Amino acid sequence: MTTKTVGGQETNSNILRLRKLRKLIAEKGLDVLLLSQPENLRYLSGFTGSGWLLISGRNALLATDFLYVEQAKGDSPDFEIVQIKQELHDWLPSLLSDLGWHKLGFEANVISYDAYRKLDAAIKAKGIHLELIAVTGVVEQLRSVKELKELEFITGAVELADIAFEQARGIIRPGITEKEIAWEIEKIVRQKSGEGLPFEIIVASGPDSALPHARPGDKRIRSGEPVLIDMGARVNGYCSDLSRTLFPGKAQPPFQTIYDTVLKAQIAAIEGIESGMAASQADQLARTVIEQAGYGNAFGHGLGHGVGLAVHEFPRLGVTSSDSLSDGMVFTIEPGIYLAGRGGVRIEDMAVLEEGKVRVLSRASKDT
Amino acid sequence: MTTKTVGGQETNSNILRLRKLRKLIAEKGLDVLLLSQPENLRYLSGFTGSGWLLISGRNALLATDFLYVEQAKGDSPDFEIVQIKQELHDWLPSLLSDLGWHKLGFEANVISYDAYRKLDAAIKAKGIHLELIAVTGVVEQLRSVKELKELEFITGAVELADIAFEQARGIIRPGITEKEIAWEIEKIVRQKSGEGLPFEIIVASGPDSALPHARPGDKRIRSGEPVLIDMGARVNGYCSDLSRTLFPGKAQPPFQTIYDTVLKAQIAAIEGIESGMAASQADQLARTVIEQAGYGNAFGHGLGHGVGLAVHEFPRLGVTSSDSLSDGMVFTIEPGIYLAGRGGVRIEDMAVLEEGKVRVLSRASKDT
Repeated sequence: MTTKTVGGQETNSNILRLRKLRKLIAEKGLDVLLLSQPENLRYLSGFTGSGWLLISGRNALLATDFLYVEQAKGDSPDFEIVQIKQELHDWLPSLLSDLGWHKLGFEANVISYDAYRKLDAAIKAKGIHLELIAVTGVVEQLRSVKELKELEFITGAVELADIAFEQARGIIRPGITEKEIAWEIEKIVRQKSGEGLPFEIIVASGPDSALPHARPGDKRIRSGEPVLIDMGARVNGYCSDLSRTLFPGKAQPPFQTIYDTVLKAQIAAIEGIESGMAASQADQLARTVIEQAGYGNAFGHGLGHGVGLAVHEFPRLGVTSSDSLSDGMVFTIEPGIYLAGRGGVRIEDMAVLEEGKVRVLSRASKDT
Repeated sequence: MTTKTVGGQETNSNILRLRKLRKLIAEKGLDVLLLSQPENLRYLSGFTGSGWLLISGRNALLATDFLYVEQAKGDSPDFEIVQIKQELHDWLPSLLSDLGWHKLGFEANVISYDAYRKLDAAIKAKGIHLELIAVTGVVEQLRSVKELKELEFITGAVELADIAFEQARGIIRPGITEKEIAWEIEKIVRQKSGEGLPFEIIVASGPDSALPHARPGDKRIRSGEPVLIDMGARVNGYCSDLSRTLFPGKAQPPFQTIYDTVLKAQIAAIEGIESGMAASQADQLARTVIEQAGYGNAFGHGLGHGVGLAVHEFPRLGVTSSDSLSDGMVFTIEPGIYLAGRGGVRIEDMAVLEEGKVRVLSRASKDT
């Protein structure tokens, strides 16, 4: 299932992505943008280690330490590799000063307050003319709209999760534990993909299915109770995310009704979401169905989230989201209803916006 | 291999830990300390989800959202659970104001600059009398000295890694790929522990063994080249960390000499480290051996790091560390020599300081 990226293609993507980023850097009036968020680094440079990118109108530097410097040379042939020692505030001010950069944008939601204040103090102590400008979401904005190659990898990851789910389905019956199911799924995914999982698999049964982020335990599955599975896979770093709820045997009331409501809410979103729509409005399409069924308070999370190199990225589909949706975005559509102490249902597909409409990528069966 | 923590014991530990923390909070003149670092949360409250602790002289609150609120009630019976919505700056200022707290310590190395500035702005906008005081490493300092129960879990995790390494050793021969070895080790660890790995297993062979953080690839092992394995396990959340370097067949020169030097450096540290010593001095014990052998520039990382709920925690054993070592600390001793383009050797044991001296916990064979 794994596709090796051809080096040249990757390099071409990097150049296109850098070009788009430089446009944004110029629009924000920055001389240079400092980045350390791991998926942003991978997206722009191919580098999968720990380090810092410095992108200006002309330069593209990758600063990293002894632990990663050799890997960086291999991962990021288009970048000038700078070997650093110690912390950000130890090496950055003089480097920036040497390069004549005065307006430094930094990822304000990634850099800690402590790193910021040390950097600020070091700049002042050295008497360097350097302005620190807080920015957020610049590369994330680029990442939210997928290129064809990225969609291909995501589709591969979605297919892999679908196949693994269908294959593991056969073992889900009364008596098996949550952990056994999770491990069976993980083995299938890992052996087929050769990459790590994007997140720890959730298998939550009975009352625990009401905990949206439950961890699989030693509890044995009982007949008729909800078994909520949330899982994903990775292909070339790109993630998938899939949730299904099953009822081994026959669903206990009121869970069949709840399941039907969640499915109806999901279909309403799939059919109603359009490019150009506010992400909060997309959320509302599903939420209205659940509210009308009397379960409004039991759908406590957003409808979905973007998926790419990170399993949670832009756009956010939720009540308070200010994102808007456009062609090329890939996201989950995952309404749920959770009754504390009783159980929960979530149905999650991945979808892409194409020619204004939703195309669902996930194909795993929704039979309960 | 997994030991279930008895609820009551956990609760007793929590109370003792809170008592120690409250002493530090009082010493720093804080009314309340805000924490969100995941291992700090688990250490103090048992909670393994995402949320915030607020610890004052009398109160212990756990604030979390819909996704984790039911889990929090189960994980943290000693804490008052507060269900929150939206971001930190939306709910924290009024909560603090209601509780009459004016001096808020926050984890400056955990909270992003963006979260800080939004919180600061919200406090000013509401006209609340609240001082934000940056602190770092308060709970980490407590965590660095292990209780007996913690040492028991760590010992379990060390044993598990040792057993898995010894069991996987049999398959390491020319022709097998790095990924196959890594997956074999992972299966053994996961099936025995039922918990996730503390970090992605490193299996790096030939020139890639010179990359301290290499990822296992499809490369096949060749006779006589170094195969560097870095792996760990978890028991009740506590981690282990183990590195070994093997040479299938007979080590190519100069790697046997390098191996002997690294081992000699490790033994020098094991025999020389004492409680009360500066962590930088501990590092120097091993570094001197490697420098004298002419490989000083090829040992580019620190000698070791604390291990507990996190695989990297206090103390740091390295040239620039300002930590000092004391009884009850658990850390790695892992000198290495890396020759770019040729290969590397690292030998890593876990150790505990007891009655002033090092007791090595790892028992995996060092036969090459």
